Amino acid sequence: MACSELTGYNKNKFQVPWFSSGQFVILLLCVCLLREIPVTQGEQSVPYTAGYIDQYVDHFNFAKFGNKTFKQRYLIQDKWWDKINNGPIFFYTGNEGPIEAFWNATGLMFDLAPRFGALVLFGEHRYYGESLPFGPTKSFQIPYIGLLTMRQALADFAHLVNTLKNQLGAQKSPVIAFGGSYGGMLAAYFRMKHPSVCDGSIAASAPIYLLNPKFDHGFFFTDVTKDFANSFFGCVSRIKKAFIKMNELMAEGKKGMDALSRYFRLCKPLTNKSSYTHLLGWIRNAFANIAMFDYPYATSFLPVGHPVDASCEHILAASDDISGLAVASGAYYNATAGPLQCFDIEKEYVSCSDPTGCGVGPNAWAWDYQACTDLLLPPGTNNVTDMFPVLPFNNTLRNEYCMKTWGAKPNPDWAYWGQDLRTTSNIVFSNGDLDPWHRGGVLNPISKTVQAFMVKDGAHHLDLRGHNPQDPVSVLKVRAQEAAMIQQWVMKKKYGYQ
Amino acid sequence: MACSELTGYNKNKFQVPWFSSGQFVILLLCVCLLREIPVTQGEQSVPYTAGYIDQYVDHFNFAKFGNKTFKQRYLIQDKWWDKINNGPIFFYTGNEGPIEAFWNATGLMFDLAPRFGALVLFGEHRYYGESLPFGPTKSFQIPYIGLLTMRQALADFAHLVNTLKNQLGAQKSPVIAFGGSYGGMLAAYFRMKHPSVCDGSIAASAPIYLLNPKFDHGFFFTDVTKDFANSFFGCVSRIKKAFIKMNELMAEGKKGMDALSRYFRLCKPLTNKSSYTHLLGWIRNAFANIAMFDYPYATSFLPVGHPVDASCEHILAASDDISGLAVASGAYYNATAGPLQCFDIEKEYVSCSDPTGCGVGPNAWAWDYQACTDLLLPPGTNNVTDMFPVLPFNNTLRNEYCMKTWGAKPNPDWAYWGQDLRTTSNIVFSNGDLDPWHRGGVLNPISKTVQAFMVKDGAHHLDLRGHNPQDPVSVLKVRAQEAAMIQQWVMKKKYGYQ
Repeated sequence: MACSELTGYNKNKFQVPWFSSGQFVILLLCVCLLREIPVTQGEQSVPYTAGYIDQYVDHFNFAKFGNKTFKQRYLIQDKWWDKINNGPIFFYTGNEGPIEAFWNATGLMFDLAPRFGALVLFGEHRYYGESLPFGPTKSFQIPYIGLLTMRQALADFAHLVNTLKNQLGAQKSPVIAFGGSYGGMLAAYFRMKHPSVCDGSIAASAPIYLLNPKFDHGFFFTDVTKDFANSFFGCVSRIKKAFIKMNELMAEGKKGMDALSRYFRLCKPLTNKSSYTHLLGWIRNAFANIAMFDYPYATSFLPVGHPVDASCEHILAASDDISGLAVASGAYYNATAGPLQCFDIEKEYVSCSDPTGCGVGPNAWAWDYQACTDLLLPPGTNNVTDMFPVLPFNNTLRNEYCMKTWGAKPNPDWAYWGQDLRTTSNIVFSNGDLDPWHRGGVLNPISKTVQAFMVKDGAHHLDLRGHNPQDPVSVLKVRAQEAAMIQQWVMKKKYGYQ
Repeated sequence: MACSELTGYNKNKFQVPWFSSGQFVILLLCVCLLREIPVTQGEQSVPYTAGYIDQYVDHFNFAKFGNKTFKQRYLIQDKWWDKINNGPIFFYTGNEGPIEAFWNATGLMFDLAPRFGALVLFGEHRYYGESLPFGPTKSFQIPYIGLLTMRQALADFAHLVNTLKNQLGAQKSPVIAFGGSYGGMLAAYFRMKHPSVCDGSIAASAPIYLLNPKFDHGFFFTDVTKDFANSFFGCVSRIKKAFIKMNELMAEGKKGMDALSRYFRLCKPLTNKSSYTHLLGWIRNAFANIAMFDYPYATSFLPVGHPVDASCEHILAASDDISGLAVASGAYYNATAGPLQCFDIEKEYVSCSDPTGCGVGPNAWAWDYQACTDLLLPPGTNNVTDMFPVLPFNNTLRNEYCMKTWGAKPNPDWAYWGQDLRTTSNIVFSNGDLDPWHRGGVLNPISKTVQAFMVKDGAHHLDLRGHNPQDPVSVLKVRAQEAAMIQQWVMKKKYGYQ
């Protein structure tokens, strides 16, 4: 889920070749030409103004940091705003990354804004990007990181929206929240916990049931596997065989490790079991992300459409099993971190409390902390319900890791998050059936005003992205349903609840 | 509001004479006889079992106290519980005092429990009674007191209810919250913030609008005055005259102060302006409490019914204006803290961030802290819209006091408390028209499921008290309406929402 921040973040890296480095030279010209295109279709480069408000460091403890503030960043665009008629505020509840990442990947808001006369506002999540309550160093130390919680983040958003409403004279504007992935969880909870601030929410690909410790979390890698199984025939069995052959090579000792290092073009050759395990995590992470972002068109971070099919094509066309695996996973890292002459697997994939990896740097530390506390992400892989090697990660291992790393572990009382969705209103939960997160989300309508829409052939929050000619019909339909719901909420706010 | 904890707390002091000490000897015999009566009607002495759960010290910061726990106390009575048929849990959201105080003053729950086959459970509020997160000393020091917030208290209640549900096999039992005064605010917010734990709430005399800094807070002493104005003709003008005459005496210097000290039978004579101001606060506090607890029958803390009328009778029958004031206010302290040979006004009334006083000891410190942070209590008196002397207390003075005392002040963002009651459901807000707090509450229905009932001739949360033959018809009607609403919520929970 952490990689959702990629959706748009590496904006200077788009059109990086989705090919192994052998093909790199041939493609260089094309890449240069492609760079002239201002944006990949489906992403929008809408200008914004960045601003900062004085945000409370701690909303829930008056004695400690009650009146201390930090600078929280937001992005705003008012060119469509029909202020006179109290045009709504479209508010993105920023998730785990610098806020501009989400600005660039949430084209739906810009597509709808002119029609609704909406002000577009994006709030950066505390402890990410520039919104650091205790500055760039202390923020990530114990105990200062303790104020990184969903509840604090939601209270930030409430204060941010109210502050800007007052500054802009927008007190009567309805507020519609949007969010994808963890941001979708935030959008939904923003409506649930701050209904006086938020009139309705579009919560896209939000696996909110993950917060329930009793919920079966073991769907994620099973569904990644399904995505590949539903692609070209033989793809999954070849992947599985490749992993078996890797194990066999590994069993040969140094010679085998050298062979594996060559297969995967590693900058630093494998030296032991631990570096081999890390390589397996690095591969698995590539496949997980390819499945999540299996959009029908190229994006700024994956330069081919239908990347699951593209990977399976590589795998099936490869001269041998391991080569196929190496080309497919290498292509992913080339696209997101490259182009790369060799792969530095320690740098490109950092094992952490999120089994899909956390990346590097402060944003990654923050996410690791969240996956150790508020969020309960899926377990590891077992090679039975999924195609991946046995890489165990369960509650016990997570607690051990988290206590060692952060001196903290999840406090699994989902009760606080109010799982009874029948008691809330005005939320759309959308999911895509290709998205390996979708089974953690709300798949059936809860009530007239808490709706669930499924995007057939849709990957991770495809509906939030801007219009693209390659969009499947299903996402057009869901976006139309979302617009209709927003219309209802806006009317309700403007003309009363009866 | 802090004095609501009196409702039942001083249970060993009931039947203290509601008379000036001159009449004390004559009444001693009657008092002794009355002591044989086990409980005052309207209060119930239902037996309970006390228990403790391991409660999280901090629900919102994993890094700091995430896994640390303290013992939270609860009281329970299961003799009416129809466990087999998932009989409901009647849960009292404890407010500012030891929990047994509320047990004894909330007879409605015991009156209804047999009819509903309910389990009765009372949760003690953190930082009160025995539920001290950092023990008896450190809990009240900065920064440890910082975890005394409504949000933490509500999360405690959610965890307490879920823990006991699991222990008792009561997972399917509907949970109905009850609370009065600040406890009523908690009951209402418990439903709003934890709808998955709480299926409906009876929020009696809950001035929730006080949390809105934009709400006009200046009603409280005006309405105390109205209660006395609606009693015997001439009562208020005599009270006002008494205060003028007190000022005149005070202007005479030592001689006048000595006279005042005799009038009020002070243990330590007045020595300066400051002690005189304290005396005025002590008097005002007595009148405020008499108005709040103007029940039609004697209670364990005020041994006559209709105490406003009783006070006015004293005042009008007195030989001079000041004597009347002295007898009426003295009678209040005699009843709640006496019998007293002389009045120690420093001990009986402690000036704090609550203009109705905070009392003494740890519970008082906790309340003072809450009135400095989460809660915004009414301002002081001005002798224009009320009958009291000019004793100013406004936001500036409160902030000064609170910063000096606790290094904290209110962070007035009511938004977090979700003032849009249209977005919640299953709450009854009840108020009494005699209660000087009622204008801070919800007086009109918000929706079909968020109701407002008014008890005519009702004082502070009269409806929550047990049945009494002196009850006005209006409270019987409101209690019947409350029972009907509870019935609906229980059925809804058991048989679905449609």
